Amino acid sequence: MRALVFDGTLHLADVPKPEPAPGEALVRVLVAGVCNTDLEIVNGYMGFQGVLGHEFVGVVEQAPNEQFVGKRVVGEINCVCHRCRYCQLEMPHHCLNRTVLGILNRNGAFAEYLTLPEENLHFVPQGMREDVAVFAEPTAAAFRIVEQVPIENKTRVVVLGDGKLGQLIAQVLANHSKQVTCVGKHRWKLDLLEKLDIVTAHFDDPFESGADVVVEATGSPAGLQRAFDLVRPEGTVVLKTTVADPTAVNMALPVINEISIVGSRCGPFRPALEALALGNVTVGPMVSGRFPLEEGVEAVKRAAGRDVMKVLIDV
Amino acid sequence: MRALVFDGTLHLADVPKPEPAPGEALVRVLVAGVCNTDLEIVNGYMGFQGVLGHEFVGVVEQAPNEQFVGKRVVGEINCVCHRCRYCQLEMPHHCLNRTVLGILNRNGAFAEYLTLPEENLHFVPQGMREDVAVFAEPTAAAFRIVEQVPIENKTRVVVLGDGKLGQLIAQVLANHSKQVTCVGKHRWKLDLLEKLDIVTAHFDDPFESGADVVVEATGSPAGLQRAFDLVRPEGTVVLKTTVADPTAVNMALPVINEISIVGSRCGPFRPALEALALGNVTVGPMVSGRFPLEEGVEAVKRAAGRDVMKVLIDV
Repeated sequence: MRALVFDGTLHLADVPKPEPAPGEALVRVLVAGVCNTDLEIVNGYMGFQGVLGHEFVGVVEQAPNEQFVGKRVVGEINCVCHRCRYCQLEMPHHCLNRTVLGILNRNGAFAEYLTLPEENLHFVPQGMREDVAVFAEPTAAAFRIVEQVPIENKTRVVVLGDGKLGQLIAQVLANHSKQVTCVGKHRWKLDLLEKLDIVTAHFDDPFESGADVVVEATGSPAGLQRAFDLVRPEGTVVLKTTVADPTAVNMALPVINEISIVGSRCGPFRPALEALALGNVTVGPMVSGRFPLEEGVEAVKRAAGRDVMKVLIDV
Repeated sequence: MRALVFDGTLHLADVPKPEPAPGEALVRVLVAGVCNTDLEIVNGYMGFQGVLGHEFVGVVEQAPNEQFVGKRVVGEINCVCHRCRYCQLEMPHHCLNRTVLGILNRNGAFAEYLTLPEENLHFVPQGMREDVAVFAEPTAAAFRIVEQVPIENKTRVVVLGDGKLGQLIAQVLANHSKQVTCVGKHRWKLDLLEKLDIVTAHFDDPFESGADVVVEATGSPAGLQRAFDLVRPEGTVVLKTTVADPTAVNMALPVINEISIVGSRCGPFRPALEALALGNVTVGPMVSGRFPLEEGVEAVKRAAGRDVMKVLIDV
């Protein structure tokens, strides 16, 4: 089958169609999304080699449970052992033996087929477009935040970053608090949120500090220092950005202001699919381009370009 | 009066005896302690200029309330306005208008006299030695941790750093959990803790990761990365080290493992004085040297040297 492989360079390759292991389903990919993590992997993050991609919607061709076959699904990306210390402690996302779709020891979604444990799959609601369902994984990552940090009606929230993840986070959190502001560098991206009645501010404009929660989703190492400036003493900075390289951070301010910094990764798919189905999260205007798998290298290049949000790959 | 002044260089100077403002007490200093923060200030931290020092025990010479006069006291170092947003929110340590003894806009304790708001003072328990009471402030900083993070009987705790603050933290936390290990680089310092039945390990020895809580108290920017390696997924790193310079940190691990990093500063004096009075925290063996105020420059130099813990200044 055709697949977009990273092995030091990114290229289209002909690779064997994957064989589902016991408990796994074989999924024919319909649409996949390019995430910043994919771009970081191409920069060396995680040292991953193999088929790239972890955001997808597909059709099940084979599964242990017959009811899955022929159904459209999205899938959680962490494949876990259920036996290790952290699985037993009900932290399966931190399974010591996990593989992660397109990120860690498991081929990903920029391919005609992928395999995942059946337990990782979620049905796509009837009538949901595939270019909406493909946002389930990053929307779930946005919902992870409300599992970790209490966001209530009056919680003052700043989302730093107006990119594709920042947009999803701002929308999800705006459904929990009336006081969400997205701070970004791109007027046209901020305007998309303004159309959804979400307050925005430009990164370069003066902005009152003192937020209860700042979500760092700039994708840039420099965002962290700005987050420290914007959060109130004893407030919380949620860290969503993962980058390959160490960055110079002055940790004096977090100590002086007793800030909590909380790393945040993958989240729950159910509320994500529900929010997408109900239109509580709007993703259509975020699609900046669609490429066929044959032009996958071009798609990733485009996703790394300026003034781009989500790039989709049609398989 | 004589005082140890930092104004770009550290030197003994003759400065005016301070005048207590309304609500303030005048305290004659008996003994003061040199803290790593003092050493960082001499390296440029906080941009502070003035009389250095914030750990002290003294005798009240003047106070609004007569009962204080003639009594031995220690003092909280944050002087607050009671009116700003954070004072109203009961976070006085984060008062927007605060001054901090020997750290921010207020002359410190390496002097014959200091002034502090009377409300900042705590009586020294009868019979407590002055070279014990002078540890109240850093011991309070250790108690701040249990205000911020739940430390229970079975909480696996690693204290990174065997210096003067690490020693106090290890002792305080060992009174809350049976599973505290102090990891340090100096056998003789670790041996002091071993004598108190606290488990220790050398920094260079292999050490099982997966602690629930890691307290970073190395005083070195490199300690943070080690803390990320030692803490379990969804665990907590408490950050005690403040240094003047930014340091290169790879923040990928905290995101992947969803680690919480909590800055921690000043703490409550009452439990600190109680622990010192009851002998639950032992400080005697930590005193590496005592200097008269006249040799204050020498005292600070000695405190910055190798194989030293607490240096005291007798006024």
